This record gives sequence, structure tokens and C-alpha cells, in this order.
Amino acid sequence: MAANRGVVYVGDGRVEVQSISFPKLVDPRGRNIEHGVILKVVSTNICGSDQHMVRGRTTAQKGLVLGHEITGEVIEVGRDVETLRSGDLVSVPFNVACGRCRTCKEQDTGVCLTVNPARPGGAYGYVDMGDWIGGQAEYVMVPYADFNLLRFPDRDQALAKIRDLTCLSDILPTGYHGAVRAGVGPGSTVYVAGAGPVGMAAAASARLLGAAVVIVGDMNPLRLAHARKVGFETADLSLDATLGEQIAALLGTPEVDCAIDAVGFEARGHGAAGSQAEAPAAVLNALMEVTRVAGRIGIPGLYVTDDPGAADAAAQRGSLSVRFGLGWAKAHSFHTGQTPVIKYNRALMQAILWDRINIAEVVGVQVISLDAAPEGYAAFDAGAPKKFVIDPHAMLAR
Amino acid sequence: MAANRGVVYVGDGRVEVQSISFPKLVDPRGRNIEHGVILKVVSTNICGSDQHMVRGRTTAQKGLVLGHEITGEVIEVGRDVETLRSGDLVSVPFNVACGRCRTCKEQDTGVCLTVNPARPGGAYGYVDMGDWIGGQAEYVMVPYADFNLLRFPDRDQALAKIRDLTCLSDILPTGYHGAVRAGVGPGSTVYVAGAGPVGMAAAASARLLGAAVVIVGDMNPLRLAHARKVGFETADLSLDATLGEQIAALLGTPEVDCAIDAVGFEARGHGAAGSQAEAPAAVLNALMEVTRVAGRIGIPGLYVTDDPGAADAAAQRGSLSVRFGLGWAKAHSFHTGQTPVIKYNRALMQAILWDRINIAEVVGVQVISLDAAPEGYAAFDAGAPKKFVIDPHAMLAR
Amino acid sequence: MAANRGVVYVGDGRVEVQSISFPKLVDPRGRNIEHGVILKVVSTNICGSDQHMVRGRTTAQKGLVLGHEITGEVIEVGRDVETLRSGDLVSVPFNVACGRCRTCKEQDTGVCLTVNPARPGGAYGYVDMGDWIGGQAEYVMVPYADFNLLRFPDRDQALAKIRDLTCLSDILPTGYHGAVRAGVGPGSTVYVAGAGPVGMAAAASARLLGAAVVIVGDMNPLRLAHARKVGFETADLSLDATLGEQIAALLGTPEVDCAIDAVGFEARGHGAAGSQAEAPAAVLNALMEVTRVAGRIGIPGLYVTDDPGAADAAAQRGSLSVRFGLGWAKAHSFHTGQTPVIKYNRALMQAILWDRINIAEVVGVQVISLDAAPEGYAAFDAGAPKKFVIDPHAMLAR
Amino acid sequence: MAANRGVVYVGDGRVEVQSISFPKLVDPRGRNIEHGVILKVVSTNICGSDQHMVRGRTTAQKGLVLGHEITGEVIEVGRDVETLRSGDLVSVPFNVACGRCRTCKEQDTGVCLTVNPARPGGAYGYVDMGDWIGGQAEYVMVPYADFNLLRFPDRDQALAKIRDLTCLSDILPTGYHGAVRAGVGPGSTVYVAGAGPVGMAAAASARLLGAAVVIVGDMNPLRLAHARKVGFETADLSLDATLGEQIAALLGTPEVDCAIDAVGFEARGHGAAGSQAEAPAAVLNALMEVTRVAGRIGIPGLYVTDDPGAADAAAQRGSLSVRFGLGWAKAHSFHTGQTPVIKYNRALMQAILWDRINIAEVVGVQVISLDAAPEGYAAFDAGAPKKFVIDPHAMLAR
Repeated sequence: MAANRGVVYVGDGRVEVQSISFPKLVDPRGRNIEHGVILKVVSTNICGSDQHMVRGRTTAQKGLVLGHEITGEVIEVGRDVETLRSGDLVSVPFNVACGRCRTCKEQDTGVCLTVNPARPGGAYGYVDMGDWIGGQAEYVMVPYADFNLLRFPDRDQALAKIRDLTCLSDILPTGYHGAVRAGVGPGSTVYVAGAGPVGMAAAASARLLGAAVVIVGDMNPLRLAHARKVGFETADLSLDATLGEQIAALLGTPEVDCAIDAVGFEARGHGAAGSQAEAPAAVLNALMEVTRVAGRIGIPGLYVTDDPGAADAAAQRGSLSVRFGLGWAKAHSFHTGQTPVIKYNRALMQAILWDRINIAEVVGVQVISLDAAPEGYAAFDAGAPKKFVIDPHAMLAR
Repeated sequence: MAANRGVVYVGDGRVEVQSISFPKLVDPRGRNIEHGVILKVVSTNICGSDQHMVRGRTTAQKGLVLGHEITGEVIEVGRDVETLRSGDLVSVPFNVACGRCRTCKEQDTGVCLTVNPARPGGAYGYVDMGDWIGGQAEYVMVPYADFNLLRFPDRDQALAKIRDLTCLSDILPTGYHGAVRAGVGPGSTVYVAGAGPVGMAAAASARLLGAAVVIVGDMNPLRLAHARKVGFETADLSLDATLGEQIAALLGTPEVDCAIDAVGFEARGHGAAGSQAEAPAAVLNALMEVTRVAGRIGIPGLYVTDDPGAADAAAQRGSLSVRFGLGWAKAHSFHTGQTPVIKYNRALMQAILWDRINIAEVVGVQVISLDAAPEGYAAFDAGAPKKFVIDPHAMLAR
Repeated sequence: MAANRGVVYVGDGRVEVQSISFPKLVDPRGRNIEHGVILKVVSTNICGSDQHMVRGRTTAQKGLVLGHEITGEVIEVGRDVETLRSGDLVSVPFNVACGRCRTCKEQDTGVCLTVNPARPGGAYGYVDMGDWIGGQAEYVMVPYADFNLLRFPDRDQALAKIRDLTCLSDILPTGYHGAVRAGVGPGSTVYVAGAGPVGMAAAASARLLGAAVVIVGDMNPLRLAHARKVGFETADLSLDATLGEQIAALLGTPEVDCAIDAVGFEARGHGAAGSQAEAPAAVLNALMEVTRVAGRIGIPGLYVTDDPGAADAAAQRGSLSVRFGLGWAKAHSFHTGQTPVIKYNRALMQAILWDRINIAEVVGVQVISLDAAPEGYAAFDAGAPKKFVIDPHAMLAR
Repeated sequence: MAANRGVVYVGDGRVEVQSISFPKLVDPRGRNIEHGVILKVVSTNICGSDQHMVRGRTTAQKGLVLGHEITGEVIEVGRDVETLRSGDLVSVPFNVACGRCRTCKEQDTGVCLTVNPARPGGAYGYVDMGDWIGGQAEYVMVPYADFNLLRFPDRDQALAKIRDLTCLSDILPTGYHGAVRAGVGPGSTVYVAGAGPVGMAAAASARLLGAAVVIVGDMNPLRLAHARKVGFETADLSLDATLGEQIAALLGTPEVDCAIDAVGFEARGHGAAGSQAEAPAAVLNALMEVTRVAGRIGIPGLYVTDDPGAADAAAQRGSLSVRFGLGWAKAHSFHTGQTPVIKYNRALMQAILWDRINIAEVVGVQVISLDAAPEGYAAFDAGAPKKFVIDPHAMLAR
């Protein structure tokens, strides 16, 4: 029982599966936390933001145990836990949150004030997010378990839908947050920048919210083909036809009601030439062009305060050249930040359990073993239209 | 061109198709209204609230030209109309609204302050709603046309979907209003009281809004069978099993997140015995029982200030015996009133045009000729799971 | 330290100060609760809803220790408490809430699902609210302290404003909740039914929210005089002039934008005759008459599911004769339920600390000793325009 | 009656009072508009955004008649006007809006789709806003009068408060819009960048909305002194103490709940050195630093798509170097655009008429004659803490 293995960042763009410590009910500051639980990890996903670290685009240190998208089975509960017991299957929001500070009480758990001494907001296995140990592993510890965890109502039903439910820890709420903040509702026309998993989850969320039509833009032909296959319109940003022209060909007007940035700071320019180089404000500026007046722009894509790998000094400290005057003239609003998963995951679980959203199919879930994690990282980095889900105990493989 | 025929209330529970005047750009107070248009009626639906009048449950006078659910083609425009021209196909919101008073500016067009001298709120062909001539006819006049009318973007596309689009004038926005005010969103569990067209439109709207599961309750076996056929769960209120028990059998808990009253003041009690007699607060009281704490109750079903046909003196003046203490203990909120169609119809049109809602199928649209209107009234009154759509110029029949 | 004294309901409309147990970190079900704290009570207020019990209008049993409006000093903390320490001054929301269930996470702490086995919602010292021991005492225990308690940022500043801050546990948030739910904002015209402390707190809240004018209605001349003295308009419901007429004399129109019911189920009729008898729906029906179309009615006044003291059988089970048809015709919405204090108290504390609201003056705070509590109950019951604040350790008397 | 005089931009940073045409019921495209009215101008204010044009920071052409902040008396009504008559005193929203397009129906009148062929959004007397003739004149024409105009309920009462009511056409709603979009409510701590009239109106609005404390920042000592005199805290941006340090000295924390940018694109840097040079993103970047996590930033200050006078090529096309990564890490949202005056002006009129806001005093209203307009422009440009109100018919001078 005291053994554990996990995915570790080893520098140079690489990860390895290594033996790591078995989790304890102790926080990163060394305090006992009787409000925590130990989970046997049922599934744990590789995330695009893990790639930022592995690619060296952050200040993450070697030795970091990765993984913040976790679904698990409770195997040990702290003395002060009231609502959970061993055997419960639970979804873990990627945000670590205390449930006791002002922002948590206001449901802004993405910027919890107490779990990270460095700044607001905590996460498992992530640089600058409070040193909570990651969950791409066999076992992991979750603090403030009564507050953080979402229990599935029925174990067998949950296991039958686990490829969808595994998306509740991050990817689905994150796409959904983007769609909600962009103001998507019944009848909306929606553009999603980026056909990676966050973009596809945003598209699926927009559909769940009643959008009339969802257009997903990317320059990766495999991702675009996958997006069409699961029912979305697409815009090919490697073409020289502008985004507005491609939207007009679909909608009869070059603008959409709502736009979602599911790319973030590693954006590239548009068109045959532009797509070769990083242009960190390219997506934001494009969205202002194609969003109707008084529209809202939801930005789940990550922008960072420090980007040592950026092309220029301004971008290295998170400064981007934004066409703010255009957005102002169109009365846009811009909605940023980490997703407060707890605000959405119960409702999205219901949507999954009642077959209202086929999120696993839309994001292209592919189950792999823990040992195959390094290959998963590489394939994902190469742009495969897949969401890799690690199955450390071979519970999904069946 | 100067001829016109329409459906007229003749008392004694009956309607007749009669010759009526051809519409003029003149309001019920006799003023010229250059902001109006004349429409050739493409489709016009029979509504449950028409039945209240025909059944003698209101103070409607004989000779009233009925009809407030109208879709038409513009054939004449007033001098001050700017955005419409002859040949445009348009949906007419059932509310007559001026677009110039405080409530209209705040999008509360259901209680426009100026179009009805008797009290806030106007409608076509309806008692106490300002004497605007009804549109179950070949031709009808619409005032404040720039403000009121929703133009379909493409005539051919619109005619191809006219059985769905005809629901935009009332039934679909009314069901949707109920769902929105009840707080329905992704993942919600929803109970809709009443499987008539408003109830079915509320159920379809709840689904469009992302509801996890929608349960429709009624005591009419044909309506229940139709509801199941188009994909909803049902509760049979003629059974002795309580509503809570029937909900629990479906959801595992006797309560839903959101409830919608699509019945109104002609409610009956529940169970084999109760369903024989009118019990005007029966639906409201049942919804408080089955709605979770902090839930919202949307009430598109009509409640009236004067009901000369009610069983007792209190109900005759609109007073009902409501278990208000129960609602208060559960922190419920109650949302009433005529639907402000203009707030919703553009988005719902988009949902129809992009195939996101099959409202004609869900409400059971059946197209009939103008001459068949009296048979349509009778069949609807008998509880047929149909929404009768009058086709005065045989434009839908093809 | 192990001694304690508190206000106990002894039946027959009477309370007594008796010796009671010193609090322990144990819940009403006998479980140790390491998430709790023990408070030395700094101030604790007599509430109108205490009167319902003392008057015999509930099923409260003799021996109940009363008191749910508590401000205190932390003197002992459970092991699981992280954010509080001995010496902190705190405001206690009257709702007992766990912070771990669905409704608490959604900020609906007034209907917490776990702290009361009988039904959602808990409170200190109140019938049917989970058997938590009341705080009209020298010492009291508060569970889930990190989640429930609001810490004042500076002890000296807090003691200097304690007559205002003592209103944060119930009366001010409750009035504020009524105003918020009624839709009060800058420029609103507002009618508040009832000039008792909840009504006065609602009036003060409406003013803080920017209301243009606030009219308070009552039939008690002392309360009306007090309301005028602290800056509000009044309507005298003992007069034969209707409420609408009195409003029109002030505003030029017989309707207001927003209405608040701060009376509840012990309402009386209006006018010289009507005011003699209980008429439990009188306030609700009057508010529908005087609220503009599309307006909202906030209902912080308590309505109960069981009222053994009511005049008729319907009212005894919480059924009222409501003119629902009138509300429907005016497109009203009705907002009920216990106030979720935690949603509002931090902001209201800020308003007090920065001198934006003189709530103690508006509600007529009068400080009394613990031993004077029975006289306070009697004076309040007689209609004194006072809010009695018990000062068990003579910390306010200075 | 056919004579008229107005303030005309003559280039080179100068304006002149010239004879201009008497207004007709004709739009800039030459069409008769029977929905319009002619106003005798009662008061008309000089706006900071007029200064952008006069300083040559826009593409405004010589000969433009200025003025978009207008209060007037109706002297002629078009045939289609229903709710106004000669003699009515009215406030004119600075936005020209049709009331008939999608955005107007959704209350986004700042980006009306029809009144400006060049792009969404119209205004009187402003470059690129549809060529509607300005109202710093004796007479002016207002189209879509029923929709656009706010009638004061009583002429004498209105004239008695005209120095306040004149702020309803732009400055007060614009400041209020900034505060509302920033999420200001009871108890908020608020920072307003800029102590010009928009900033002062935002500060007054924040106070009306219940803010606990409002801090206004500027580098002009006269404006700071005025801000303190009318009751606000201040931050002196010419000092080397950072804004965060100055906020911390007042609040005990370097962050506020809500921030408002009332400066716009002509911003300068902070501190003794920085304040010498334009730094168009300086305010936005500072607001991200001092706004709490999950906070909102309201941006009524103008940002433009084309700024021929900017220091560098990027700023000339409206591109700014924004620290977007910082905002994202703090989960901020950013709210831009022209204010839709009609959404707010009725409520704010009520607040003025009931003495809830002393806006004339807060913005420093100073009444001048039409002939003194050029001196007013010059004094305002020099930074006088004044809001100049032109009184073309000597109706305010009394």
C-alpha cells in the first residue's frame, strides 16, 4: 500500500514515470490536514497546460510530479471529513480551494486566497500553484475534501461513463466557463479559437447551452477534421481567406455573437505566412474583429505573467500588443482567469449522466496506461486530436 | 383585395368563420398609425388562451375576432416604417407593444403602458387587451411594425420551416419564458405541469437550455403518450401515486431543480378523485412540494383577475388558496406574467433555422384551413395532443 | 469559566434568564465537532421571530434557549479551525450552515442540507431549526466556524461600532435581502410593509442601494414617528385612505417600483376596521396592488408551514388566500425565504465601518443587560420602536 | 425663429461660435424624419471627448458643429411622434439610436446598427458617429424622439435642478456605467483613475451605488483638491509612492474590489518621471495591479481605433501594450464601450429629483454663455476642475 508511481517532469521537454512517495494527510507546508482524503486514482488526464511546463515555457523545476485532472476512489479519510467515505468515486476539481476564504465563499475557487502562499489560486502538480503534489500517479491526496470533491451518485453508473466523467476535473468545466463567460445561450452563433481539447470542450459546451451554430478555428488539419466529424463547423486559419470571410461564408455575416479564446499565449498568426510565427495577441485581436458589437469574449486560454520562452521582452513579462481601441469601439467585454470548477461540475455531471453531452467523443478521449504517459505527452504535443487519459490501475481498460 | 375573413367568437362556446373588414392603418382609438403594416397572414395558430374565452371563462364579448399567434407577409407599409418592405416574411409577437414607453424600453413588452387604455399589456384578438383586431384571418394590421416584427432572413428558408417558425409568435417563447424564469440551465432536472402546447414548448425549451431531464405531468393519456414519443419523461396525475413518488421513481429523489406551471387557473386536483374537480391552486401547491429548496417556479400558465366561471367567490376574483408558508420555508421564488416575446424570438428563430429545436413536432403542429378553424377549436378543447395552425391562403399545405 | 446563563422560553408567553450548560464542541446529535468554536457573547439581539415562539404561534417547546443574533469573541477553537484564533471578534450569521453541501456551495446557506435532520435550514435557538443552542446567553458554540463566522478586521474599531455591527447577524442582512430581491437600485421608489426592525432595516438597505425614496407603512404611531425621524416617508395603515392613495400623495402615482413584505404571517388588514383582525394575506395582496407592472416583491417577512394559533384551518397549515391573478396580470415575481446571511454580511460590514449606514439609529438599538431580557421581550411585543440588544458581559454599556 | 448659432471646430485646436442652419426634420442622409423633434437647447455641456477632437487627436474635419450633451425644450414635433409635445423639457442621450434594430431592442443603444452608415453607434456633433449635427447651439434636431428622449415630469421642478439634470445626457450615465460594469455595490472599495468630470461622475455613482469608500487618482493638484472637497479619498499619481502603496495607506491592503478607468487613451505614466509622457496602456496596467482577484474593471474612458496623434505606430492604430497575463492570473474581466444612456437615465433622474446625488457639485458645474464657449474649452483643456455648461438662451443664469 505504501508504494506509488507518478509522471515527473525531468526537464528538456521530457517526462518520466518514477516511483514517488505515497501521499499523506499533510499539506505542502508540512501541516497535518485532517480535512483531506487519499484517493486511488481511477483516471487522470494530460492537459495542454502541462505541455506549457514540459516545453519549458514556465519556471517549473525538474522533479515536479505532474497532473491536475483527477478522478479517484476514496481510500482514506481524515478525521474531520464528514460527507465522504471509503469507496466513494469522486471528481477532483483541478483548483485546490479551501472553502473558507472570501473568494471561495463567493464561488471564485480559481483564486482561493489561502492554499498558495505565493499568490491566489492553487492546483495540483503545477508550477507556482502552491506545491500540491500532482495526480498523474497511482495515489494522490486531496485537501478540504468535503468542499472540493464531487461524489458520483452511483459507482457502477459512474464507471460505465468514466471516459466522460474524467473530463469533469478540468477540460469540460474550462470549456464551459469560456462559453458561459462569452454569453453563449440558445440561438447564439459562436466562434471558438483553437481545436485542442479546451476548444472542443468549449464547442461542446456551447452546443449544450443551446448555441445555433459553433465554428471552431485551427490550423491543424487533423484537429479540424475531427471537429467536423463531431458536428462543428470549422475555419482553417492556415488559409489566406480571412477568418471574417470564412465566417461570412457560413453565416452570411462576418461576425458571431460570442467568441472564445481556447488558445492562450502560445498563439500564432493567421494565414499561410502568419501561422509560422508566434504572435501572442493574434487570437485576442482576431476575436475583436469577428465578434459583434456588445459581444463578450470568453478567455479560458492561458495567459501568463512570466514567459521566459517568449520571443520578445514585452511578451516575456506577459505584455501583449492588443488592439484595445477596436474592442472599445465595439463595446466588447473580456473575461479571463482560471475556471472555478466547483461552480459548474455538478450540473455538467448531470448532463453527462443523462446523456446530454458526449464530451469523451468530442475531445477524443484515448485511454493509456501510466507507463505510456511519456508517449501520450509526445503525441499530444505533436497535435494529435486526442485527449489522453491515464488509467493507472487498469480500471478503464476493460 | 378589400375582402377579409376571420374567426369570430359567437358565444355559447362556439366560433365561426365570418367576413370581416379588411385591415386599415388605424388603431382601435381611430387614429391613423403610419408606423403600422398590413400583413397577408401566412399562418395563425389556435391558442389555449383562446379557449378560455370561447369556454366563457372570461368577459369576452360576442363578435370578437380571435387570433394572436400570427406569421405573415408584409403587403403594405405605413409611411413611417423604415426597416420593412412588401414581401418580407415576419413573425408577429402576440404582445402589441409601442417600443417607446418605459416598460418596452426595459424589454418588458408584455406590459406595455400605452397600447391598452384599460391596463398595461396589449394583444391581438383578446379580451381586455386593447381591442386590437385578431389575426385568425386572411389579413391583419400590426402597429409599431419596426419595433414589433421579426423579419426572417430568407424567404425560401422560412417557408421551408414555417411549421416551426409559426411557433415563434407565442407558444415557443411562452414555454421558453417559463423555463428561463424557472432557472433551467445545463444539467437541471425539470418538472413541467401540463402537457398541452405551452407545456410541451416549455419542455422543448428546457431541453434546448441544456436540462438533464424533463418530466411532463398531465392526466390526459393521449398527451402523455405524445410527450413520451417526443422524448420526455412523464408523470400521470390521474394515478394515485403522488407526483413526488413518480418523480422519485425517475430521479431517485422526490424533488426537481426547476418547475414550470403550464396549466394556470383552470387546474384540477391530482389523483383519481382530485382530477375530477377544478382546484385553481392545485398546480402551484404541487410545484412547491416537488421543487427543491432555493428553487424557482416559472408560471407561464395564465391566472386571471376575474373568472366569472369559477366555482367559488374567491376564485371568481382571482384569489387562490396558496400554501405560501411551504414555498417560504423552501426559499422559493415565483415568476408570473405574459411573456415579452421580443426578448426571446430572435434567438429562438436562430435555434429553429439551425435545427436545434423541433418545436413543430414537439407541440404536434397540425395544419388546417381557415374554414376548418371551428373543428380545430373543438378538437383542441377535447384535449387532442395537437397545435392547430390555420393556413388561410393555403401556403403551408403544399 | 464553566458557568453560563441564558434566556429560556418557559411557555405562556414568557421567558426567563436561567443557568444553562456551558457550551461544548458537540453538535445536537452528540458528535464532537472540531470545526467549531466557543464564543463569549459580546452582544445578542431579541428578534421579532423570537416573539412568534414566545407568543405560542409555533410548536416551540418549553426549555428552549433562545437567541440567533449573536456577536462574540472567540475563546476556544476546535482542532480543524484554521482561520480564527482566541480574541477574534466575530459576527455569527443566524443560519447554521455547513459550507460543504450543494446549497451552501451555491451561497444558499439559509437552506443548508445537513445541519437540520428535519428539513433544510438551521438556526440557533429556534424551533424546527436543528436544535442548535441559542445565543441569548453568556457563551455559545458555533459549528463550521471557518465557514460561518465573519471576523472584524480591527477589534477596537469593531467595539466602537458594536451597536451597528450587532445588526449584521440577522436584522440588517434580512432587510437587505428583502431589498435586493425586490430589485431595489439607484432611483427606485420603494414601499416597505412594516416599521418593525426588519422593515426599518429594509428601508435603510434600500437607501444604501440608492433608492430615490422609501415609504414605510405601519399602523403603530410610535413606529411611524420613528421612521419619519430617521428620514423615511410613511403610510399610516390605520387610516381609511388606501395605501395607493397615500403613495400617490407622495409620488404622484399610486404605485412603487419595488415592494418589501417585512410583516409576514401575523399581518392585519388595512384601515380603521381591518387593522383589528389578523388577515394573513393582507400584506401580500396590498403589495400586488401598489407594485408597478414587471415589479418584484421581496418577502423577508416570515410565513410558516404550521401556525397552530391561526384563526382558521387553512391558515393553520400555512394556506393563504392570495390574489394571485392580480400579481400574474402585473407580471410580478415573488421572492421568499430565510436570508443567506453569508452572502451579504461582509459587504454590509464594510458599509458600517465606512459610515455608509447608520443601522443602529434606524432600527432603534437599545442596549440592555441579560437580566433585563424579559422586560425587553415585553416592551418589544408591545410595539416599542426599538431593537433590544442584550449585553451579557457589560461590554457595550460603557 | 430661423436663426441659429453653434460651436464649430475650426482646426488648430480652436472652436468658434458661428451662425449655423436652423435644424430641420431631416437626417444626415437627407431623408425626412417624422419621428424627430426640434429642441430649443436649454443647456449643453462641453465634454472631454470634444477635447480629443479639438486637440487634433481624431480625424474630425473643420466645420463640425460640436456638442452631444443636450437638454432642451420641445418646440416642434414630427408627425410620427406620439409621447411628446411642445413645451416638454427633455434630456437627450448623447447616443443617437433608432429603437428598432437588434442592439437597441437589447438596450445596447451605444452601438445602434442603423444611425451611422460607417459603423455601429451614433452621436451628435462627433467625428465618425453618423454626421448628426451637434447641440452646442441654440437649436438642435433629435431623431426617433419617442425612443430617445427622457421627459422630466415637472417643468418647474426640472428648471430648479437643471444644473444636475444637465448631467443626464452623458457625464453621469457614463460614470455610472463605469461603476456598474466594475461591479460596484454596497460595501465595495473602489478606485477611479482620473479626476476629470467622467471620473468624478463615476465616483459619485459609486457612492450612490453604496460603495464603502471611493479613491480618485490623478496628477492634477486642483482636481485632487476638488475631489477631496466633495468627499472622496485621493491618490496623487505625481508622487513616487506607488498607487498600491497609496491605496494600502487608506485601506490597509493594496487592492480595491472594483476599478474604473476614466482616463482612456491619452493616459500618462505614474510617478514624477512617468507623468511627463503619454503611456496609453498605463491606466489599464495600473488597474490590473490594484484590483483584487476576480474583480471587474469598468472602462468608460475612451480608446480609439485610429489615433493619428499617438507617439508610435502601434498606438496610432489603437494597439496598446497591455499586461494581459497579469489580468488573466487575477481572473479579471474588462468592460468597455460607449455608454447606453437610455439604460440608466430614468433611474438617475429619479436619484437627482429626490436629492440622492449632488452631481453638479461633484463635477463642478459652471454655467457659461454660448459666446463664452471658446474660453470654456480652453479652461477645461488646461485642467480646471470644472464641467462647463453652456446656457444658450440664458435660462440657467437666473
